[in-house]
Amino acid sequence: MKKFMNSAGALAQDCLEGFVAAHGDIVLFGDAKKHVRRRVLTPGKVAVISGGGAGHEPMHTGFVGHGMLDAACTGYVFTSPTPDQILSAIHETDSGAGTLLIVKNYDGDVMNFEMAAEMAMAGGAHRIETVIVNDDIAVERSARGTGRRGVAGTLIVEKIAGAAAQAGAPLNELKILGDAAVAATRTMGVALRGTTVPQTTRETFVLGPNEMEVGVGIHGEPGRSRAEMTDASAIVDLICGNILDDFGSLDGQSILLFVNGLGGTPLSELYLVFGLARTFFERHGVIVTRSLVGTYVTSLDMAGVSITVTVLDDRFTALWDAPVQTASLRW
Amino acid sequence: MKKFMNSAGALAQDCLEGFVAAHGDIVLFGDAKKHVRRRVLTPGKVAVISGGGAGHEPMHTGFVGHGMLDAACTGYVFTSPTPDQILSAIHETDSGAGTLLIVKNYDGDVMNFEMAAEMAMAGGAHRIETVIVNDDIAVERSARGTGRRGVAGTLIVEKIAGAAAQAGAPLNELKILGDAAVAATRTMGVALRGTTVPQTTRETFVLGPNEMEVGVGIHGEPGRSRAEMTDASAIVDLICGNILDDFGSLDGQSILLFVNGLGGTPLSELYLVFGLARTFFERHGVIVTRSLVGTYVTSLDMAGVSITVTVLDDRFTALWDAPVQTASLRW
Repeated sequence: MKKFMNSAGALAQDCLEGFVAAHGDIVLFGDAKKHVRRRVLTPGKVAVISGGGAGHEPMHTGFVGHGMLDAACTGYVFTSPTPDQILSAIHETDSGAGTLLIVKNYDGDVMNFEMAAEMAMAGGAHRIETVIVNDDIAVERSARGTGRRGVAGTLIVEKIAGAAAQAGAPLNELKILGDAAVAATRTMGVALRGTTVPQTTRETFVLGPNEMEVGVGIHGEPGRSRAEMTDASAIVDLICGNILDDFGSLDGQSILLFVNGLGGTPLSELYLVFGLARTFFERHGVIVTRSLVGTYVTSLDMAGVSITVTVLDDRFTALWDAPVQTASLRW
Repeated sequence: MKKFMNSAGALAQDCLEGFVAAHGDIVLFGDAKKHVRRRVLTPGKVAVISGGGAGHEPMHTGFVGHGMLDAACTGYVFTSPTPDQILSAIHETDSGAGTLLIVKNYDGDVMNFEMAAEMAMAGGAHRIETVIVNDDIAVERSARGTGRRGVAGTLIVEKIAGAAAQAGAPLNELKILGDAAVAATRTMGVALRGTTVPQTTRETFVLGPNEMEVGVGIHGEPGRSRAEMTDASAIVDLICGNILDDFGSLDGQSILLFVNGLGGTPLSELYLVFGLARTFFERHGVIVTRSLVGTYVTSLDMAGVSITVTVLDDRFTALWDAPVQTASLRW
């Protein structure tokens, strides 16, 4: 494990310091550096807040800005932010229209965001709604436990809800819209190489020279299967086939196709995967009307890729297209 | 070596196919897919063209669009595009105002762009000027051979020249401006892990668990020294100290500070390096007025980072700030 860092304990905060220094035109630290928020808030707008462990950069801080998030809370690597951090973000960004929390479906995240919401709502101080993102189809729906994880589709939910909030949608509408965006979104990933968590120096998993982890999570959680490494077309057919099966049918539907790098895979390979995935869906009668290719939702420097599909209607398309000015998404 | 690909021979073209499929609103293939060019050309504008081997994505195709390049030519991995490719880009994008070629300083690239320029100028068909980028200070100026290599600073030269061309600057001015941008720009990189060239399955270099390659090039060329791995602050001090020494003095100057990932290093570590580098320069009386952090000029999936400094005057600053609409740079 070789990383550009000074110490494992300081890694997450050192990254944040650099992030805020690089993007001071868009963001600033909240009080006591508990969260990162927009430099300029929009009065009367519902605040949209997300957060999670460090190690998934640019998610979520890279999505703070006009048209997307108002604030992001970052914990230690792969560790939920504390309720105190989340509460500070709510306090500093709520301008009276309420707050939408967008939370990836992990026990720690869900628990800490719930606690923060309860504290914030106490005495009627804030109105809060929460959208739980659970787009990872690698986890079977029938599985015991907390169900499906939130992975790369979180970006899409944050963009759609963020754009609607920017356009003035009220809190109750944003809750319905966010839940609908989650329901329209499915993701599956594959890893070619695991990663090492800095604090523990423990590898999340070790793959043989001809193995890949199919259905990997963004903390290196095991997937559906450990499979023999194969060519890109076969990998794409496998992932996209699973996504298509999970939707049931997408025949004639318009989709946003999002190919995401897990941190250590170069953009060239992501474009290659995108080209194959687009061809796959078109061969199956699905129309790719919007696309995104890049390294947005990561697992430190894990080598791998995830493919996300969101079924688009006119409203989702317009919200996806709406202007966004963040460190990592801009149009 | 595990990569998302179907075959080593098809890798570069498969990536391009995916790139054009993902960014069809901005780019299209030139005739016979010899190059990638803007979907909408600006009549009467000097055409700005660059290119080089594949494996450095998003450079150069990711910089094609309004305010930057008109076309990019991509060869096989780490292999110059052919004169025929470059000539096709000149033919299809020259609207009569002439063409500026921006070329990284490698023997193959320089030779093939020169040949293309000679062929294009034959009979007065096209007016051509060429800017050679040689920002890599890891190569001593006194070294025999072709001198300093062109690395991440190429992005800055392309942005500055591209913005000036978009604003209507004539060819002779663009040549002077491009050369001045090169002279104002210095880069140095360090690698923590080499990469494998797909065609040869040869590793560019192999580092021990506690080694780093200081001054690495973007094809895995050896650097100034193989050093013992150390913490991020020491690495940043080493690189930035070398850059500062090479400039002589930057006291009181304004700079653009660009921290670039070499392909396999996550954004979190790049931000950490940026924060330290910014502090370094401020401690040395240098004012960081513009910044860029991301994975833009790569060496396949090499783990590593480069730091680039461009000394800014008012004109460079305005050209850097000018609107740009490409796949990989947008503001």
